[in-house]
Order: sequence, then C-alpha cells, then structure tokens
Amino acid sequence: MTTKNDRKAQASEDSLLRIFTVPEDAESTLSIIEQKLSEDLAGFLGKSIAALEKPLSLIEQDFRTFQIPDAPRFVSDYTDEIMQNLVAHSVHTSAPSFIGHMTSALPYFVLPLSKMMVGLNQNLVKIETSKAFTPLERQVLGMMHHLIYGQNDSFYEQWMHSANYSLGAFCSGGTVANITALWIARNQLLKADGHFKGINREGLPKALKHYGFEDIAILVSERGHYSIGKTADLLGIGRDNIISIPTTADNKVDVTKMRQTAKQLASDNIKVMAIVGVAGTTETGNIDPLAELAELARELDCHFHVDAAWGGASLLSNKYRYLLDGIEQADSVTIDAHKQMYVPMGAGMVLFKDPELANAIAHHAEYILRVGSKDLGSQTLEGSRPGMAMLVHACLQIIGGDGYEILINNSLEKARYFADCIVEHRDFELITHPELCILTYRFVPHSVQQAIDDAVERGDVKFVTTCNELLDGLTQFIQKHQREQGKSFVSRTRIKPAKYLRKDTTVFRVVLANPLTTETILKDVLAEQSDIAQLDKQYLPRLLELCKVT
Amino acid sequence: MTTKNDRKAQASEDSLLRIFTVPEDAESTLSIIEQKLSEDLAGFLGKSIAALEKPLSLIEQDFRTFQIPDAPRFVSDYTDEIMQNLVAHSVHTSAPSFIGHMTSALPYFVLPLSKMMVGLNQNLVKIETSKAFTPLERQVLGMMHHLIYGQNDSFYEQWMHSANYSLGAFCSGGTVANITALWIARNQLLKADGHFKGINREGLPKALKHYGFEDIAILVSERGHYSIGKTADLLGIGRDNIISIPTTADNKVDVTKMRQTAKQLASDNIKVMAIVGVAGTTETGNIDPLAELAELARELDCHFHVDAAWGGASLLSNKYRYLLDGIEQADSVTIDAHKQMYVPMGAGMVLFKDPELANAIAHHAEYILRVGSKDLGSQTLEGSRPGMAMLVHACLQIIGGDGYEILINNSLEKARYFADCIVEHRDFELITHPELCILTYRFVPHSVQQAIDDAVERGDVKFVTTCNELLDGLTQFIQKHQREQGKSFVSRTRIKPAKYLRKDTTVFRVVLANPLTTETILKDVLAEQSDIAQLDKQYLPRLLELCKVT
Repeated sequence: MTTKNDRKAQASEDSLLRIFTVPEDAESTLSIIEQKLSEDLAGFLGKSIAALEKPLSLIEQDFRTFQIPDAPRFVSDYTDEIMQNLVAHSVHTSAPSFIGHMTSALPYFVLPLSKMMVGLNQNLVKIETSKAFTPLERQVLGMMHHLIYGQNDSFYEQWMHSANYSLGAFCSGGTVANITALWIARNQLLKADGHFKGINREGLPKALKHYGFEDIAILVSERGHYSIGKTADLLGIGRDNIISIPTTADNKVDVTKMRQTAKQLASDNIKVMAIVGVAGTTETGNIDPLAELAELARELDCHFHVDAAWGGASLLSNKYRYLLDGIEQADSVTIDAHKQMYVPMGAGMVLFKDPELANAIAHHAEYILRVGSKDLGSQTLEGSRPGMAMLVHACLQIIGGDGYEILINNSLEKARYFADCIVEHRDFELITHPELCILTYRFVPHSVQQAIDDAVERGDVKFVTTCNELLDGLTQFIQKHQREQGKSFVSRTRIKPAKYLRKDTTVFRVVLANPLTTETILKDVLAEQSDIAQLDKQYLPRLLELCKVT
Repeated sequence: MTTKNDRKAQASEDSLLRIFTVPEDAESTLSIIEQKLSEDLAGFLGKSIAALEKPLSLIEQDFRTFQIPDAPRFVSDYTDEIMQNLVAHSVHTSAPSFIGHMTSALPYFVLPLSKMMVGLNQNLVKIETSKAFTPLERQVLGMMHHLIYGQNDSFYEQWMHSANYSLGAFCSGGTVANITALWIARNQLLKADGHFKGINREGLPKALKHYGFEDIAILVSERGHYSIGKTADLLGIGRDNIISIPTTADNKVDVTKMRQTAKQLASDNIKVMAIVGVAGTTETGNIDPLAELAELARELDCHFHVDAAWGGASLLSNKYRYLLDGIEQADSVTIDAHKQMYVPMGAGMVLFKDPELANAIAHHAEYILRVGSKDLGSQTLEGSRPGMAMLVHACLQIIGGDGYEILINNSLEKARYFADCIVEHRDFELITHPELCILTYRFVPHSVQQAIDDAVERGDVKFVTTCNELLDGLTQFIQKHQREQGKSFVSRTRIKPAKYLRKDTTVFRVVLANPLTTETILKDVLAEQSDIAQLDKQYLPRLLELCKVT
C-alpha cells in the first residue's frame, strides 16, 4: 500500500528533514500507517499463537541480505513487507492459549503510553536528559521498596529522593538485576580496608589475598535461575563457586543441607559471599523458605539476595503474600515488572533494603554523574536507559493494589484449578503442584502410571528408568507438535522429580499469568495433548507394550 | 478529561479483563487517549527544551507518595495527571536547540513501529517467544558486521543464521556492549587449559595462578568512556588495572606511550588482556589511531576492542568512514543505534569479527537455550529482551545507506560550520576541533584571551591557572543559566587542554546530531551565551579586572 501523501525518504536533504518532523494533518501518512498496523495486528493477534507456521529455515530466507540497502524505501512499502515477513511469523505471546512462558496479555493503555515514552526519548542515566522522569523512577522504586520492606513514612521521606542513595535500580531485566545485587554483595564483602583499596579498585585476586580467604562462594538452590551462574562467571568468581544446594521434594532449597555446606566451606576457608533465595523458581514456581535462609545468612554474616523476578508480583496480593514471608529480611530483591506485573518487556528492578548499599558500585564521570547529583546512572550497571519506569508507574496507578489483588489471586487459583483437572484426568500426571501459578505435568497413560507405581514399589529402577526415557520422548513429541499446530502453547523443561528417582525428567511447564486464559482453554489444552499423543508412533506404542507385558 | 466510554479499571474481575483486550470501535477510549497524548505531546515538544522550568525539589513533591494506591484509576485521569506532572517537566531531547547530549529528533515512523513492537511483546531470549524476530535480529547484526568488517557473501551465508555462533549481540546500550566485549576478552585469554577448567568455571584468582600472571590489565585512552572502569570493577579485574594512557594534543591516545606502558607491564608480569580504542570520545568526539592500536594488539597478542558507541554510525558515510580506518581489524566493536543512527533509546550492539568469539561466554539452561538451539539468549549478558532490533532494521531500510550518508555528512559539516563561528567570534574560544560532530568551547572575552596568551608565552603558570579557574566558574554559570532559560541546551564537561597547562578545565560541549538543528540556531546559541555571561557578577568582573591590570 502506497498512500498518496506517503513521505518517501528519498536520499535528498529536504525529504530527510521531513521524516524527522511530526506530520501536521490528522489524515497524514503517519495516522494511516498506524491505523493499518493496529488493524492488521489486532487481526493477526486475534487468531492464533502463530498466524502461519513456517519453518525457521524458510523465514531466514527473508532475512538473508547482509548488505545495508543504499536506496531509501517508502514507509508504507516497508511496513507492508514486515507485516508479511515479520509480524505474521512472530509469536502471539499475549494469546490466552499461550501458557508456556512468562508473557501475558498487556493492558491496552500501555500501548499509547509506550509510544509517548518512545517519543519523549528520555535517557534516565542523568537528570539533564530525563528531568521529571528521574523522580518518577525513584517513586516507583520507593513503592516497590515499600511493598517488600514496608518501612515508615520518615524512611521514605529521607531516602526516596536523596542524592547518592537509592532504594533500588531499574534495569532491562531480572538478569541485570541479579548481577547488580551480587556485584554489590561482592564489593561490600571485599571493601576497602586499611591499605587495601577495595575490590572495585584492586580486583578479586588481591581482595582474597588481603582478606585471607581461599575463595568466595554463593549458595543457591539447584532450581536457581541460570542468570546466577552467568553472574558468577561475569564477576570473576567462577561458576564452580556457585554451590548448588539440593531441594526437598517440593522444589524448595534444603536449608539443613545448605547449612552443612556452609560449614564445610568455612572449614576450607571459603567465605560465603551471598545466599540467593528463589521466590518463584523458573521451572516450578516454588518459593524457598526465605525466613530460614535469612537466619542462615545472619549466622554466616553474608548478603541475602532474593530472586523474586517472577514471584515478587505476588506481594501485591494480600491474600497470598504470606507465601513470600521472610523476603522483607533480604538485603536485595529482584522483581521483573514485565512478568506478572503486566508491563511490556524491559522493566526489571532490584531493590535494596539499605539505601546505602548501592554505594558499593558507585561511579562518576565528568560530563555526567557528577558527585552529589541526582543522576540515576551513578549506581546502575547500565548507562543510557529508556523511561520504562513510566509504564510501571501507570500500571500501579491504573490497575491499583485492588486490581492487582484480583489478577494475582485469579492467576494462582486458576493454576490450582488446572492442577485439579490434571489430577482428575486418568491419562495425565501432575509432577509439581502450583505454589504460585506455575505447574508441571506429563501425559502418562493410566496403565503406564500403574505399571510405574508398581515398579517403584518393588524397587525396579531399570523399569522406571526405561519408562521415564520413553515418556521424555513422548512429552517432547507432544510439546513440539502442539506448538506447530499453533492453537496453543505450553513449554517443556527438565527437572528431577522424586518419583522418577531424581533422574532428569522432561515435563510440560505451564505459566498461568494471562487473565484472559479461561477454564475452557485449559481443558482444551489437555484434550489436544491427549489427541496428539495418539499420533506418536515412536514412544507411546513401546510404552503401552512394555507396561502390558509387565 | 473523562470520556464517556472510558474504561475504568474498577477492582472487579470483569472490568479487569476488559483492560486486557483491545477495544473494538475506532472511536474508543484508546484512540481518544492516544490522540490526546499525541496532540499534547506535539504541542509541548514544539515549544521549548523544557515546557516549564520548575525546580527539581518541587517536581519531587508530585512523586512523593511511596504507597501503591489501592483504588484503580481512570486511564484518562491518569494521563491528564502525567501530562502535567511528568511530560510537561521532562526534557525535550529532540528539540533542534537541544545540542548538549547524544539525543536527536527521531524519524516519525519509529513511533507507530515502537507501539507495534511493544504490542507484540516478543522476548528475544529464545525462539519460542520471538520466532521471526530472531532471524531479523541476526540480519541486523549481519548488516552491522558487514558495515564494519565487509566480509564476503559466503561468510555471511555460513554464519549469519548459524546456531551456536553469532556475529554480535544486541543489548540495552553501549555500556552492556562494552562489558560483553571485555567479558569475552577476559574469558578468551584465561580459557580452559589442561587441568584448568577456565575462568568461567574457576574464577579469576585461580586463572591467574594457572597462567602464572601477576595480574591482568586493560589499556585505554584517558578519554575512554566511564563504562570501561565500571567493566573492570564488575569483571573482578579492578579499576586500577584499567591503565589510562595520555592523549596527544588532539585527544587521541598516544600509542607510543601505550607501547611503553605495555612493556613495563610485561616486565612486571602483568598481562595486557585488551586494548580499547575509542572511536568518538564522549567528551570531544575524537578517534584513536585504530590501525596503530590494532598493530600493537597483535604485538601483545591481546584482544582489540573498539568503543564506537558514538562514532560507529559514521561508517555509514562513504565520505567520512576513512576517519575510522583500522576498525575492521578490531576483534569486537560497540555501536549504539540509539545515538547517531536515530533509533530510540535502548538499542546497543556489540559486533564480533570472529563468529566463534562469543562462545567464551556461552551458557545454557534446561527450559530454554538448549544446546544447538538458535536462541539468542545463550550468548548475551542480558536474559529477556525486547525486539528493539526491529527499529534498527526499519531505519536501515527506510533511511537507507544513501539517506544515512547525507545525515552523517551534514552532521559533521554542521559541526565544522559551528567551529568556524566560534573561531570567528572574538569572545569565544574553540577548545577542541570537531573530528566527528562533537566540539568543545568556552566563552572567553577577547581581552582575557589576549592576557592568557601573553601569560602562556611568558610562562606565568599562576596567572593562567587563576584565569582558568575563573573561566571554569563562568562556564558553569552560563551553562546552568542557559538550561534554566529553556531556549537551548549545551552540556559541560571537564577536559585537560594543552593551552590550559593540562589542568582540569570546564568547557561547553556540543553534539550536532539533530538534522533539524539549523545554522541560525547555532548562531543564536552563541548570542544567548554571550548575553548570559553579562549577568554573571562573580567571575566575569574579576576576570576583566585581572586582565586589565596585567
């Protein structure tokens, strides 16, 4: 579609200047294109998970040119093309039947607000390019801090807008939030002392030498997010110094084992730098016993970080926030607003109990971030950053605490409903119960369930293992096929359930955050999976055969 | 404004579900709000740098509540409020007279495209939540790689879409890009070897022990960006191991001195891990002698990274790309598309010469990023990320190489024009010549210029120093006053010009990237600064007095 008044970016100075100014007439190309995009998008998004299932290798053909084209193009031509090549082959992450990952439908008002945010193009690294966005971001951090730590009025009056202190930091996502928290923990532990100028100045090897530690370590559940390993690599600590602690049957970290491990490390002169508690494991949605971890952190005199990237939003529910009891004792907490707070991608946060904590990573520069300024950039890992805080601010105000209460409660209760459906269905097996709104399960024909139960009872490890491997294949087959059918999507992961002798076990994983997901959709997902299973010619027949013979 | 059909997010399940669905009628609240926002925004943005100059402490009053409100609010009430409290007090970064930082006007088409991007809410960490966005991002990285390295067809056919390899990584900005590059350099240097499992596994202290280095260091110009120091802190290397090398008079790193320093370090058994070349210093826009640095890196057998966050866009100019000669020899290059490529905030990139390089930081997880998948998240510092690559893709196609050629050339030539104006004006002094489109200068009354020149000639250090300090005060006074007047904005920084005996010297800093900035605006800026200077009662009178007496 080339509209009459489309403004071509011809390679002339005049036409170029025009693409940098906002068109004046309401019926301009801008509005036409925008309307067109919105309509197509709504149409596309209404239909399915992926409008057209096309193999990735074919999609790649549309993106194979590696040379920047010389000639400018009409905006309308370009948008026509990407509607076909890109949008039609992107993933409908907000579809009510897309229940496999931590994406959801978005409140409709975030779209115009996002456009405004992009148009204002503020840079939050410094006041000079953000002005009122800086106090707004500090307010959002204050609100999230209050949600976790609930300090009194005078605390927030003193610290929320105070230069050189911060109640938290915005960042692109939970990974950067976790890195920031553990960077602070490391620098805090190995700070300047006597002639030693601090790890930030002299580095880790000299810091260990000065403090007389053989090494430093981080303790975290075996279900901890992969970003913790990435952090240890990045910070120069090394992945092997992330000590993975086993979980109990409910996927919560075993604090007794963690305490034993800490003692062993201490006797080897390895200092525990931080304990990371998980509040909402990525795979199963379980919450570590945070209060017990806080106590252990005090015993060990180490930093206590809680990775609540996913589960932190549940603090917005008065009914269920007790599930995260103990989080208020954490030194730092990660929460992603782009997960269950219904904000678009790119809104991570880390909150600090002590407003002075972030000074462990403070840095300054002459042209910005001068000492004493209120520039947010002096205590963040990232430099230039967009004003995403505005979208969190908008959601907190427009949805409000009461609105979030309903959204979170419904989400948790929908997960319980789905768990019941799975338990009641004779051919499905619930693997992990939903503590928040994540659960895992498998398609296991009734006769196979019985045969495995019998085998477990008589201690037939080989039989259980064989069945488990076949079920892994079947689970993978169903999940891939379901995705390709494009009606609905669940993800899959590998965990180590007690029933399957703690062997790696492939399971379906479901995240029930989308308010538009109905009970009917959930029942349909099971029916669809059950049907797909019958198409498998590789694993199911062998399973049925095996379990009949036994 | 509360429109009749506004959809209130009452705390009821029904009303909540409605805010998650796109309104069906064209005259819906959504369109009304959107139109309203656009109009107000256009009105506000048309006028001035900051619509209303209000002290930050007063703005903070509007953002002092620290409790998340319980009651939901009307979308229209909320937007009314933030138009007044936030938008009216944000910074008009795209104003043609806002020439102080690296922001510019944006092409109009990025606004509707941004809204579409937000609406699609893809997560680029993995194919399952991004599909076609993944090949698109790989294509953009391929195009940028080709812009820098210009490899042949078969190179891009082989690598651009290859799983487990990458030509680069998208990230939120230049800081994360620099961190990623140096993280890779560190891990590459201290990789697994014999019984040593690699720094990523065992950490920096054991890596140094294994390789027998006393320490590792990074060499960079004294004009290097502050993110390099932050990186050294984060990576556990320590800021003191960033060896700051003096620049020659033109703010380019002194390669002879760098080579001498490297020799000294080698004799102390300190291994140079990387040389960082700066292609567009943040303060003065100068480019290090990249080819010479590449040669030195080869001599030292170390990683060569180029921080071209700002200057990299100049590669898009066939006329001026020679200024960056040698960049094609870099192992890694940082470029920010949200700087001179006219993309909104949040589009940083790092490019790798060798597609295998990023494997030094590869990581995997069970629920995503499985080995062999094309998930982009396995080789990035960040985890979940939005589809910003789409906006870079759009600009590259719609503006095209020919369009960028004009934009970049005009920008560089405008800077030369402004430099001429400063030189011709009797009361201004050009401090650094624009190599790209950044320059620094000062207001120095003609009589003062003469007196300082005389003092320099007779070696009167004390007189020069005294004048310089007074000029620092005057520069700061003018810059702050100009910002507060809200007509135009230049930034200020501190550099060490030869003329001022290499002492810290406060200067105006101007970035001429906005295509809408006219020659008239530039002349007006000088006139305004000249007028403001006369208002100063603290520094100017003393300067004039001092220089008259002498």
